[in-house]
Amino acid sequence: MENLFADRVHPETASRLAGLFPVMDYDDAIKFTAGAPAENLFPSDEMKQAYLAAMAAEGDHTFQYHTVEGPYELRERLAKRARERMKITDAKPENVMLTAGGQQGIDLVAKLLLNKGDAMVVEAPTYVGALASFDMYEPTYYEVNLEADGMAIDQLETLLRAHPDIKFLYTVADFHNPGGVTLSLAKRQRLVELANQYDFMILEDTPYRDLRYVGESLPTIKSFDTEGRVIFLSSFSKVLMPALRLGWLVADEKVLKQLYKLKEGADLEVPNLTAAAVNNFLANNSLDDHIAKLNQEYLIRQQAMLKAIATYMPEGVTATKPEGGFFTWVTVPESINTTDLLYNEATPNQHIAYVPSKNFYAYKDHTNGMRLNFTGLTPAQIDDGMKRLGTLLADRLTKVIN
Amino acid sequence: MENLFADRVHPETASRLAGLFPVMDYDDAIKFTAGAPAENLFPSDEMKQAYLAAMAAEGDHTFQYHTVEGPYELRERLAKRARERMKITDAKPENVMLTAGGQQGIDLVAKLLLNKGDAMVVEAPTYVGALASFDMYEPTYYEVNLEADGMAIDQLETLLRAHPDIKFLYTVADFHNPGGVTLSLAKRQRLVELANQYDFMILEDTPYRDLRYVGESLPTIKSFDTEGRVIFLSSFSKVLMPALRLGWLVADEKVLKQLYKLKEGADLEVPNLTAAAVNNFLANNSLDDHIAKLNQEYLIRQQAMLKAIATYMPEGVTATKPEGGFFTWVTVPESINTTDLLYNEATPNQHIAYVPSKNFYAYKDHTNGMRLNFTGLTPAQIDDGMKRLGTLLADRLTKVIN
Repeated sequence: MENLFADRVHPETASRLAGLFPVMDYDDAIKFTAGAPAENLFPSDEMKQAYLAAMAAEGDHTFQYHTVEGPYELRERLAKRARERMKITDAKPENVMLTAGGQQGIDLVAKLLLNKGDAMVVEAPTYVGALASFDMYEPTYYEVNLEADGMAIDQLETLLRAHPDIKFLYTVADFHNPGGVTLSLAKRQRLVELANQYDFMILEDTPYRDLRYVGESLPTIKSFDTEGRVIFLSSFSKVLMPALRLGWLVADEKVLKQLYKLKEGADLEVPNLTAAAVNNFLANNSLDDHIAKLNQEYLIRQQAMLKAIATYMPEGVTATKPEGGFFTWVTVPESINTTDLLYNEATPNQHIAYVPSKNFYAYKDHTNGMRLNFTGLTPAQIDDGMKRLGTLLADRLTKVIN
Repeated sequence: MENLFADRVHPETASRLAGLFPVMDYDDAIKFTAGAPAENLFPSDEMKQAYLAAMAAEGDHTFQYHTVEGPYELRERLAKRARERMKITDAKPENVMLTAGGQQGIDLVAKLLLNKGDAMVVEAPTYVGALASFDMYEPTYYEVNLEADGMAIDQLETLLRAHPDIKFLYTVADFHNPGGVTLSLAKRQRLVELANQYDFMILEDTPYRDLRYVGESLPTIKSFDTEGRVIFLSSFSKVLMPALRLGWLVADEKVLKQLYKLKEGADLEVPNLTAAAVNNFLANNSLDDHIAKLNQEYLIRQQAMLKAIATYMPEGVTATKPEGGFFTWVTVPESINTTDLLYNEATPNQHIAYVPSKNFYAYKDHTNGMRLNFTGLTPAQIDDGMKRLGTLLADRLTKVIN
């Protein structure tokens, strides 16, 4: 039977997402693994009211088939948000598409663009869920390194010169997952220039964009787009709640027309009750006030993480300094394999867990990094966990030297 | 920009689903187009309670990330249903996968099996939404005609001999959409034998299976499967509510392992609130009692349709006699193009609408059929609408003869 499977699935290959989150049954376990928002900050009561209002407004029809596009009013709200908060000044409701979480946005854009073997660029490291989606369209990956101010744009240009067939670039420009860095203003502008010059499309994935704890927001890459080459993707998973499974993207109408065709084939239409509930929530609550509340709390945790890094990380270990988002990225000397360290020492001995670098690289060939989440833990947990990690790394590095 | 789109999307090609449902602003309009269930029969109050109970049970955690598989308890219930009602005697929760409507089940199975150009079999006619999904994996289609007892199995065997590379067959075996016919017991058994002999997979799509108004249920194709070649797909859209966007499939664990990988890439996970609500609904209500209520009402409409066909259809026009489901399929003489008839005469003059045959064929090359829904109209509307259709067809046929 497995002989009938398509090339894209290899029976012996594990999911990109498998084994990312080790189970630890210790009372004193501290997990830096999570990519989940703090659920005690969810506006659950308000969302419950929004669900009830949606059902009351439409009655039985709430549960009937609706459309592939979902409620126009919700797309109007999001277009307004795109214009005002994302500086995508020409965004209309007709440019907004609702998706099943940001993940479906990634998947549909990949499906729109990628024939088997097509050339695309991803950051190294990059979001593992995006690789999980891209893999299934069998592209040829080219990697661009991350720097403190986002992707290495000169390296990108060299790549584009060498491989003019590159047609698609995926980036997490704000508070990178897993890198923690943000693409600078100058690089954003340069990236759009390169896209125009070398004829490729950009997917700007921004689930963390609104979660900025210090400094000022940068304009979106999409705000510099003059040729409809940039698809801007956002999500309610991190700023509201993940289980809504609702994302949204902004793109040229020619792009959306094809994406709707793909969405019809993929899952027919937007789930009406969810979309109507989120529309009600946005009508009756301030999303920005809610985000401000999140940022206030997450700032405390981000500062705890930066302090712990400065205090506990030994010589030779570096970490990115995120101004927002969920993660910092730690790089250790190449003598340390972070996957082995996790399973052989960090988890069983120190009772801490992180996500090792391997899975965040298209070719799984980087073994000396780790992703640490700081939004899912208290400052005390962060301090305690980072102390344990620092001790472990210092011990390993001493052993290597001696 | 469109030069960067993948081969699967052609900017000039309309969606398979576009234009299927003409707008008619007439007071006396009668639409046989719908594929939607009667919403006045929805158990909306019970479902509202199920949503509230789900939120109460899990609190804030309701809205957190959960898993790609969704609630185990719901999969347990569905495995039990598969064993008892579908006679899939070895179904375990580990064989059940939750999908975003039946549509995602179709899409993921296509993604599992189809490389570009791979050979697959569809019925002629077949479900247009399935074609919308399959198209995007660029298969080579082979068509098998529908007969009164389902697909022409001898024609299938001839095809398999001529094209031994056929790897995948899609069928709507119970109350076919759009054909209205049901695959006989003997053909079900023979189909599995052929799959074993000629080495192909079967997707058995059964959204209407429980909606039988007369006669006895036949065992599922999956119940005859001995080699894990059959994927059984069901949905809550027709027996509960479409806006839930919840379907489920039963397959071999080796198949599910790959389908979960594909689902992670497509939309990460099952929407927890929906799945928890449906689980609560099933715990506190009898789905079978609800289905019995639907069948009681739909029987009246099906009988009205059969009577109207006998009364009003002129010589030379034939219609299938569905024992369940939503549709009957009408075949008219080849001199009549049902697309032209719809837009030039049926809609503007008779104020009736149906779905013309063209879109239900992989190659869009059949123009003398139409799909008529009978579950969305009252007996009086069915009588009135069919009288108008009969008059129109009789008139056209008289003109052709003279």
